[in-house]
Amino acid sequence: MKFLHVMIRVKDVDKSMDFYTKLFDMNLVRTITLDDCVLYFLSDQDGQTQIELTANFETPEDGYKNGDAFGHLAFGVNSMDEFGEKLKSFGCEYTCEPFYMEEAGSTIAFIKDPDGNEIEIIQD
Amino acid sequence: MKFLHVMIRVKDVDKSMDFYTKLFDMNLVRTITLDDCVLYFLSDQDGQTQIELTANFETPEDGYKNGDAFGHLAFGVNSMDEFGEKLKSFGCEYTCEPFYMEEAGSTIAFIKDPDGNEIEIIQD
Repeated sequence: MKFLHVMIRVKDVDKSMDFYTKLFDMNLVRTITLDDCVLYFLSDQDGQTQIELTANFETPEDGYKNGDAFGHLAFGVNSMDEFGEKLKSFGCEYTCEPFYMEEAGSTIAFIKDPDGNEIEIIQD
Repeated sequence: MKFLHVMIRVKDVDKSMDFYTKLFDMNLVRTITLDDCVLYFLSDQDGQTQIELTANFETPEDGYKNGDAFGHLAFGVNSMDEFGEKLKSFGCEYTCEPFYMEEAGSTIAFIKDPDGNEIEIIQD
């Protein structure tokens, strides 16, 4: 069995598309239009597991709710310094500044996507 | 940049491990023990994007909360019929029975994982 995708609901699809395609270099590989929403499938260069953005035509006024069962999505970067510059030019800030996590042997940091989902950045 | 993993918090790690390794044939590829939790990284056969199960030592009594910003994780199966048999023998039930989704050209169904996260099953 294959792990195909992770679906998240987005309130402002333009903002989310910018976030995932410009900040994380993902590509839009498929769009499905349904009666009540449009589904956008984004892929990284490896193209294995995708992120599906669901843009419902009707969205809750104060946005979707973030529970605590779902934790985060994680992306690997070659250079945390370069990513930091990109993040800044994108007008975003770390919610948790980069630090070395000894147990994982990686430098990690956290940001939030436009819908408040936590995103982990990992530099091995 | 590479889409590395999706993290979810689990209340009963044995139950969740059974669910993801036995029902979805994922493999435990890495474990990291921290002061307050253990992180279990599961991979499918392609091994690209992983699922990270976070087992905190202290968990909320009534379990983690499922928001609606996060939607689901999706797995691809070769045969929905075979999966249905496996699901039954596993003591689980569909929360949404298999149906053909014309717009996607796939048969899809939904179940829930032990923490209430929605899981989509897709047969192309």
